[in-house]
Amino acid sequence: MKHYYDQIERINYEGTQTNNPFAFRHYNPEQIILGKTMAEHLRFSICYWHTFCWAGTDMFGSGSFNYPWQSSADPLSNAKAKADVAFEFFYKMNVPFYAFHDVDVAPEGNSIQEYINNLSIMTDILLEKQQQTGVKLLWGTANCFTNPRYAAGAATNPDPEVFACAATQVVHAMNATHKLGGQNYVLWGGREGYETLLNTNLRQEREQLGKFMQLVVENKYKIGFNGTLLIEPKPQEPTKHQYDYDVATIYGFLKQFGLEKEIKVNIEANHATLAGHSFQHEVASAIALDIFGSLDANRGDPQLGWDTDQFPNSVEENTLVMYEILKSGGFTTGGLNFDAKIRRQSIDKYDVFHGHIGAIDTMALSLKCAAKMIEDKRLDQKVAERYADWDKNLGKDILQGNMSLQEIAQYSLVNNLQPKARSGAQEQLENIVNKAIFG
Amino acid sequence: MKHYYDQIERINYEGTQTNNPFAFRHYNPEQIILGKTMAEHLRFSICYWHTFCWAGTDMFGSGSFNYPWQSSADPLSNAKAKADVAFEFFYKMNVPFYAFHDVDVAPEGNSIQEYINNLSIMTDILLEKQQQTGVKLLWGTANCFTNPRYAAGAATNPDPEVFACAATQVVHAMNATHKLGGQNYVLWGGREGYETLLNTNLRQEREQLGKFMQLVVENKYKIGFNGTLLIEPKPQEPTKHQYDYDVATIYGFLKQFGLEKEIKVNIEANHATLAGHSFQHEVASAIALDIFGSLDANRGDPQLGWDTDQFPNSVEENTLVMYEILKSGGFTTGGLNFDAKIRRQSIDKYDVFHGHIGAIDTMALSLKCAAKMIEDKRLDQKVAERYADWDKNLGKDILQGNMSLQEIAQYSLVNNLQPKARSGAQEQLENIVNKAIFG
Amino acid sequence: MKHYYDQIERINYEGTQTNNPFAFRHYNPEQIILGKTMAEHLRFSICYWHTFCWAGTDMFGSGSFNYPWQSSADPLSNAKAKADVAFEFFYKMNVPFYAFHDVDVAPEGNSIQEYINNLSIMTDILLEKQQQTGVKLLWGTANCFTNPRYAAGAATNPDPEVFACAATQVVHAMNATHKLGGQNYVLWGGREGYETLLNTNLRQEREQLGKFMQLVVENKYKIGFNGTLLIEPKPQEPTKHQYDYDVATIYGFLKQFGLEKEIKVNIEANHATLAGHSFQHEVASAIALDIFGSLDANRGDPQLGWDTDQFPNSVEENTLVMYEILKSGGFTTGGLNFDAKIRRQSIDKYDVFHGHIGAIDTMALSLKCAAKMIEDKRLDQKVAERYADWDKNLGKDILQGNMSLQEIAQYSLVNNLQPKARSGAQEQLENIVNKAIFG
Amino acid sequence: MKHYYDQIERINYEGTQTNNPFAFRHYNPEQIILGKTMAEHLRFSICYWHTFCWAGTDMFGSGSFNYPWQSSADPLSNAKAKADVAFEFFYKMNVPFYAFHDVDVAPEGNSIQEYINNLSIMTDILLEKQQQTGVKLLWGTANCFTNPRYAAGAATNPDPEVFACAATQVVHAMNATHKLGGQNYVLWGGREGYETLLNTNLRQEREQLGKFMQLVVENKYKIGFNGTLLIEPKPQEPTKHQYDYDVATIYGFLKQFGLEKEIKVNIEANHATLAGHSFQHEVASAIALDIFGSLDANRGDPQLGWDTDQFPNSVEENTLVMYEILKSGGFTTGGLNFDAKIRRQSIDKYDVFHGHIGAIDTMALSLKCAAKMIEDKRLDQKVAERYADWDKNLGKDILQGNMSLQEIAQYSLVNNLQPKARSGAQEQLENIVNKAIFG
Ligand SMILES: [Co+2]
Ligand SMILES: [Co+2]
Ligand SMILES: [Co+2]
Ligand SMILES: [Co+2]
Ligand SMILES: [Co+2]
Ligand SMILES: [Co+2]
Ligand SMILES: [Co+2]
Ligand SMILES: [Co+2]
Repeated sequence: MKHYYDQIERINYEGTQTNNPFAFRHYNPEQIILGKTMAEHLRFSICYWHTFCWAGTDMFGSGSFNYPWQSSADPLSNAKAKADVAFEFFYKMNVPFYAFHDVDVAPEGNSIQEYINNLSIMTDILLEKQQQTGVKLLWGTANCFTNPRYAAGAATNPDPEVFACAATQVVHAMNATHKLGGQNYVLWGGREGYETLLNTNLRQEREQLGKFMQLVVENKYKIGFNGTLLIEPKPQEPTKHQYDYDVATIYGFLKQFGLEKEIKVNIEANHATLAGHSFQHEVASAIALDIFGSLDANRGDPQLGWDTDQFPNSVEENTLVMYEILKSGGFTTGGLNFDAKIRRQSIDKYDVFHGHIGAIDTMALSLKCAAKMIEDKRLDQKVAERYADWDKNLGKDILQGNMSLQEIAQYSLVNNLQPKARSGAQEQLENIVNKAIFG
Repeated sequence: MKHYYDQIERINYEGTQTNNPFAFRHYNPEQIILGKTMAEHLRFSICYWHTFCWAGTDMFGSGSFNYPWQSSADPLSNAKAKADVAFEFFYKMNVPFYAFHDVDVAPEGNSIQEYINNLSIMTDILLEKQQQTGVKLLWGTANCFTNPRYAAGAATNPDPEVFACAATQVVHAMNATHKLGGQNYVLWGGREGYETLLNTNLRQEREQLGKFMQLVVENKYKIGFNGTLLIEPKPQEPTKHQYDYDVATIYGFLKQFGLEKEIKVNIEANHATLAGHSFQHEVASAIALDIFGSLDANRGDPQLGWDTDQFPNSVEENTLVMYEILKSGGFTTGGLNFDAKIRRQSIDKYDVFHGHIGAIDTMALSLKCAAKMIEDKRLDQKVAERYADWDKNLGKDILQGNMSLQEIAQYSLVNNLQPKARSGAQEQLENIVNKAIFG
Repeated sequence: MKHYYDQIERINYEGTQTNNPFAFRHYNPEQIILGKTMAEHLRFSICYWHTFCWAGTDMFGSGSFNYPWQSSADPLSNAKAKADVAFEFFYKMNVPFYAFHDVDVAPEGNSIQEYINNLSIMTDILLEKQQQTGVKLLWGTANCFTNPRYAAGAATNPDPEVFACAATQVVHAMNATHKLGGQNYVLWGGREGYETLLNTNLRQEREQLGKFMQLVVENKYKIGFNGTLLIEPKPQEPTKHQYDYDVATIYGFLKQFGLEKEIKVNIEANHATLAGHSFQHEVASAIALDIFGSLDANRGDPQLGWDTDQFPNSVEENTLVMYEILKSGGFTTGGLNFDAKIRRQSIDKYDVFHGHIGAIDTMALSLKCAAKMIEDKRLDQKVAERYADWDKNLGKDILQGNMSLQEIAQYSLVNNLQPKARSGAQEQLENIVNKAIFG
Repeated sequence: MKHYYDQIERINYEGTQTNNPFAFRHYNPEQIILGKTMAEHLRFSICYWHTFCWAGTDMFGSGSFNYPWQSSADPLSNAKAKADVAFEFFYKMNVPFYAFHDVDVAPEGNSIQEYINNLSIMTDILLEKQQQTGVKLLWGTANCFTNPRYAAGAATNPDPEVFACAATQVVHAMNATHKLGGQNYVLWGGREGYETLLNTNLRQEREQLGKFMQLVVENKYKIGFNGTLLIEPKPQEPTKHQYDYDVATIYGFLKQFGLEKEIKVNIEANHATLAGHSFQHEVASAIALDIFGSLDANRGDPQLGWDTDQFPNSVEENTLVMYEILKSGGFTTGGLNFDAKIRRQSIDKYDVFHGHIGAIDTMALSLKCAAKMIEDKRLDQKVAERYADWDKNLGKDILQGNMSLQEIAQYSLVNNLQPKARSGAQEQLENIVNKAIFG
């Protein structure tokens, strides 16, 4: 392994006393929290795309990074150089997982055959690097949105040949993920949506997407992949409207196509807020609907209307998220993937370390604070008490279907119900949360 | 009938040549459009609540209207005086329908028995007025959100007694709607949502809401009501998050509780935009999901984050909406209910006429423009052509399930697919729309 | 003083070890931070309106609180009862200040004379209560937005008689504020804006508002009031657009009317976010423009488009705000007024304590964290270094006006400038902030 | 001139009877509206950047257009080929004006000297093409945001050498604009803003920007440029916050640096809505503040939070804008520049015609409808009547400064003012507007 980040050995836990900016202050992988190590709870993953493929462009500016692994005229050489640096970074960041798109790791080539060959070559290299470093694959995916052929969607494209191209990429990306021991396979419908309803047949495109997902599920069993299939919701961008808008929308889609037991969601913080929801809301909703899978841990900007994909740095926001996850029993195959990128101005070679270290400590601290919320027990009790009457006579009779609407109305009349007002106690509960976070 | 609006006889169609502001310029009820009269297509309805119950308050100001029917100390006298003016107005506005909440038309009283009695008295009065004026009921509903008992929700309240109170209102509002020949019954979950996840059990509240809707469906059959049950989506306000967020969310809810064939949606323009969608999107989505029912025709303000409930005045926006509806075959039991209110400064007695006349002409013109879009045929053809390959070999094989994902990938490789780029033609289609609207 | 909150003596600092929810965990009034006591830094104030006047209504619901001081048929008795409870609460909350609108404390009456008399009576009572409790007045203001006469604005009303009514209220509210030793006088242009440009003469209304503010300044000197005049920005709500949109807009207005040395701003967190800005942005902007005055410390909801006026509970957000204020030298006459209300469901008598205690601890902790950011020195140094070249030759020549644009261009050419890229170091700086907050 | 668009001769007015999609239906350049030709009123301009420089990329996708003038390895050859097509298009679109950035028309080169040489060569070519085609320059500008050197801003960069580079580009872009007879020179502060306040000195950056603008004004006079200087507001994107946020913000900035008579604004529709304002609001505000200059006519998407720069297609929106402009006397040096781009899927060579034709007809029709609003006179009268009392005694005394605040209060008391409520008549006025648009 070449040493690109030659000033850094490896990031380790040094605790809050350290002044070393290249150390974890809160993330102690081996520390036990509620019966599991922090590493087991958090299952951190670093993404290939933002970290090693993005050149520092934005819609108004050209690339600012000038990475050496983007300098060769030979795409495959670049891919290999990139893999060297990527695994050096994964290792030095001391995280157990990484995640990639097919074309992050292997050049597309000029034909399907070339694509397949390149991906095959690179999969072997990645496997070797996984074995060398101990870094594992959290999930793989196929990029079916960058190539201009996907301008009008992949599975939902008006041209079935484009559907076929997407299917091809997914087959090979699933194979690669399987070979690399990936724990999940993610589908993000980057352009599964519309620019204008004027040229769109919603019902047709939904059928196409339903069929695609059914085929993916079938293929999973066929190849013996044991990981979890995940869809990542996003409401819009690059399109005007995307079909995988949010958790609730995906749930309806899965129900329609009989997939709600087969596919779960990979929720991204920034996509949640773009959809008009809090991150906590999306996570709690997925859990309540039994489709929670994994997280893309990042943050958006509350004042901006696009996907800024910044590193998470809010313990306040993520404590609430980790609290939902802890209550639900924690991750199974999922984890915390940093779908996040340094800022275009962050051109120092080590800024990417600062970004990830801050993010990791943020999530680690959030886990600890969430554990305190659990241990405090008052939150849980307050909620249990609030709904307690649903376990008593009237409540049970209603929920068990023992009373018709008219019988309930009759009961109200006979008893002249005047339900006693109860405080929602929001301020009190918020103070309990802040005590867990700030002492 | 007393004559409150004594300067107006009735609003009639006078065409675009008139200078009379109290005439329709575009809405000619008897005019045939695509084989049906405009009245049959549009099925206009006026709402009781904004028009006769709202006093002109807002969150920062007290009432500006001083209506005579809000002046008596006896609530039932007020209710009767209000009914007089309401039906005078419905009649003079020349619309076929109206809509109401239980407590819009009858005082709540101080007990459930009083509520039932008041509603019964007023239902008889409304029936008589319907017969006198020929105005019919588009839909009835129960207001389960204004009374403080519903502060934490109705069906989703932590207290089953509150659920029972809501059930009581719905039973009696359904009875009243049935007796009055209402063509639909609407459920708007005004506070079915949460203020903070900290005091909320999402799964529990969802179960409660599902049970409630199942009971409502059952009750519909029991009382022999032939109308359509409708849920009205709204994403938030007054709560932080409402469970009937948008059409896609409601679809998932209906699927979970086996209700997708029993309940449809009543889509409000302003709620669509608050949810981050265009009005057209919500209508088109409901149609694509087979749950389209009825419309609350109003408008929000694109720069404001609350429900301004203004009268619709955009032909551009509503032409697209009417186009979706025409393509789908038009309303069945649904219609265009003006869930809209004049501005707090519109204190002239006749401003409410201007509001409704403008709205009616806007929707009538939108219908005509949408019919031109249909007649032009190019839009339909362009969309049909765009997806035409899905009716050919590869497309059919995929959708009919004749190929596995791997077989599709193999097909792509063998044929080295390089799908030909196709223009989405958005600019061209938009020009066709504007030709339909503006000539 | 009657004892309404009879379960509470007074809220005191008990530190983080306490389990008493009715104690401060972080706010220790006497503790010295960067050379001043926390009380001197934070200058907390409780508002009369939300806390004692709001009945728990919202746009979809009637009042949920049923306060005893809203129960009498005699408005003046209610006002006195309310003052008793208000000062009991101010005292028990252990804050140095309160704030009020004229009609919060005194009934409007049925004529201007009655208004003046009522305000005069109540001012005497407030003065006595101030002396009894030691609570002081942070600021007074006049409510020129609730009465329907202000539906189309106060100073910007098309009717000069309405302007005159507003002037009347401001004269008497300023007198009351002066008599009560108020340290500031605030103007919030609740309806100084428009609902539609169609009925609005922007230039005329701006002239009216400019004249109004000039008269207020003149009156301040005339009555010998030594406090600071403050305008509170808000972008919209209840109107479509308000002229005091944000800090930058107010700055332009003040400059146009020659008032930038006479009037400062009272910035509210929730108004900042409604305007599309972070709270920190608005504070930093006001400081950079030399018009920073005071704060309404509250919070909005990042997903909601109206003024939720919740209690501040984010240490992360408010640390950045306090950091700006500390860097600028701290408050002079301004302070932290809690323009915040408990939730409509918070019907427990003591919820208002929880709301304020949480808010006070949040701001106190934010002060401490901001002090650590100052003491850490790295943030300040990084910024100083970043701009250091502006103190060297080229920078100084440019800023001091020694070079024309063409001379600068010539300099660039001759030296073939290729400025060296520099990292913005955002991730690193954010980690420093989180270290200050979380250790 | 090569013929790239070989299927099109020139777009001409054919009226609403035509079925030719490559004709104007509403824009008849010679038709007289309120005393001027439509061409004189509208002053259409086509932009170089979106139309000929953008490759069809977005943040998630690579270029979809494959233009021949982007294919050569020699940048200057590309620039020449691009100029050929650009002027062919300007001519065929039958518009009087175009607009460009320096680097749209000339390659940046590898040094400042190369940049100057390239721009000089291309300026000569453009001049020749202007003479051949009769197309004139509405405005020129310098792109000080794409090159990575501007990542942290141009005039507001922490590095004065970057300021100097920007100054260099502006000097040469102003010279080119002057030589080409440009009627305006525009400054868009693409990155004059911040990503995080943590690394930003707001006061310092504001001083830099003020100095820069002062130098630009000085340079204008020095080179004898008679056109208008314009700043284009935009609230954010690509940065978190831009200093030229909106019209009101720019006004305050101009006042601070004594530039309000020297610089006006170029308002873009999409930037208006990103700032939370209607397009009409921004135009009306600029007119009321005497800084209205020119327009970038495009549209955003009401549901999307980034600059979609679509072609304007709303007659409803633009009628209100044209109404403000007509009332103000119309454009002087400004015009309607289409800062708009076809969609990434619009890969048909002629889609760019459809986009511009639709946009031109939209604005032409908006002009006609606005003229009808003027001719109807009722709108103007209603507004005049609404404020009429300000020309009577009390109103005049107030505005002319004849009464102090206390005297006004005394007047109110003596006369016991009870201002009569007046309707804002919003619904009525909106109906008048729709009559002007739709008949
Ligand atoms: Co993601
Ligand atoms: Co993202
Ligand atoms: Co509605
Ligand atoms: Co509504
Ligand atoms: Co405030
Ligand atoms: Co507020
Ligand atoms: Co522009
Ligand atoms: Co733009």
